[in-house]
Amino acid sequence: MQYPEAIAKLIESYSKLPGIGRKSATRLAFYTLGMSDDDVKNFARSLSASKSDLTFCRICGFITSKDDDPCVICSDESRDQSKIFVVENSQDEMAIENTHDYHGLYHVLNGVLSPMEGRGPEDINITSLITRLSDHSEVKEVIIGLDASTEGEATTLYLARLIRPSGIKVTRLARGLSVGTNVDYADQLTLTQAVNGRTEI
Amino acid sequence: MQYPEAIAKLIESYSKLPGIGRKSATRLAFYTLGMSDDDVKNFARSLSASKSDLTFCRICGFITSKDDDPCVICSDESRDQSKIFVVENSQDEMAIENTHDYHGLYHVLNGVLSPMEGRGPEDINITSLITRLSDHSEVKEVIIGLDASTEGEATTLYLARLIRPSGIKVTRLARGLSVGTNVDYADQLTLTQAVNGRTEI
Repeated sequence: MQYPEAIAKLIESYSKLPGIGRKSATRLAFYTLGMSDDDVKNFARSLSASKSDLTFCRICGFITSKDDDPCVICSDESRDQSKIFVVENSQDEMAIENTHDYHGLYHVLNGVLSPMEGRGPEDINITSLITRLSDHSEVKEVIIGLDASTEGEATTLYLARLIRPSGIKVTRLARGLSVGTNVDYADQLTLTQAVNGRTEI
Repeated sequence: MQYPEAIAKLIESYSKLPGIGRKSATRLAFYTLGMSDDDVKNFARSLSASKSDLTFCRICGFITSKDDDPCVICSDESRDQSKIFVVENSQDEMAIENTHDYHGLYHVLNGVLSPMEGRGPEDINITSLITRLSDHSEVKEVIIGLDASTEGEATTLYLARLIRPSGIKVTRLARGLSVGTNVDYADQLTLTQAVNGRTEI
C-alpha cells in the first residue's frame, strides 16, 4: 500500500534534506499535518522566498536580501576597511560577528578547496577576493578563518601563497586549547600547536 | 547581526520541527538555498497540499486524500470484514500493511491514552470504534496492535474491557523475542513474556 499522494510527496521532499532518512521524513510529514495552518503556510512561503528573495552579496559573497546588495556590512562605511576576514560560509561569518569583537570587512568563499569533491579555486569565491584586494589598496590585513580541517588548511595555505606577494599581511586564527579543554584530553597536534604558539603573560 | 529576513524566517520554520534545533535548522536553511528551484517549489507545494488535500478517513481514521474518503482499505470489499486491527497512527497501519500478511480492516486511534499529556478516551478515535463495532455485526475479532509501552498497554487494557462485553473476540500482538535477539541480552520482562507465551513446535 502507498500513502496518499500529498503525504508521499511531502515525505519525499523531507527526505531530500541532509541527515533525514525515510523514517524521519515520514515522522516530519505526519508532524506537519498536526501543525497549525499558519505555521505550514509560513513554512511554504519562506521556502519559496528563500529562492526568490535571496542572493549572495556581489562584493563579499555573504547571503543577503536582493534589496540589500551589497550587504549591510559591505555598505557600512564605519567598519574598518583595512581588514578582510575570509570565511567559508555565511554561518561562519555570523559566528564571528556574534563575538562582537571584529569590526572589519568579510569575504565569504562559499566553499573550500576539495580535490576529493572536485572543488578547485575557480569553484569558490577566490577570484573576487583577489580582484577586491587589488582594487582596494586600503586593505592591510587578510585574516583567514577557515575550519581546522585538512581542506580548510589546504585552502588557507593556497590563499596565503596567492596574497602574500602583494605585500598584504596574511594572518590565520590561533591554534591551541579551546575554552574548557583539559590538557590531558587534548589531542597531540592541538597540544603541539598550543606549545608552539604559547604567549607571554 | 541578523540574517536577512527570508533566511531567518526559513530557519524559524525549520526549527519548529521536532528534533531540529537552531543549529540544524540553520544548516537545513542554507542547504535549501543550494537545492534546485524545482525541488524547493515541490517542497513548498507539498507542504501546502498536505494541509489542503488530506483528511482522516471518516470510517477508520487513516490518513487519506479528500477525494478518497472513505480510504482505499475501507472501500475495498475484498478485504476480510470480520477483523479490525486497531493501531495508534497511520504509520503503524502502513507497517502492518507492509508485512502483506493481514487482509482485514483497520481502525486508527490517532493517539493513545496518556494521563501525563492529558489525553483521555474522548481525545482519540475510540467512540467511532465502538459505534463501528455495534453497527457491523460481521466483525468477529478486534486485534489491538499498540506500542509495547506503558501508554500502549493502558490503552490496550481499556479497549479490551470496553469491547469484551459485546462478545467480540479481542486479541493483542504476541510478546516475545524480536528476530535477532540473543536470550542473554533480552530484558527480564520480555523474557518472562516469551516464556509465558511459549508455543508448541
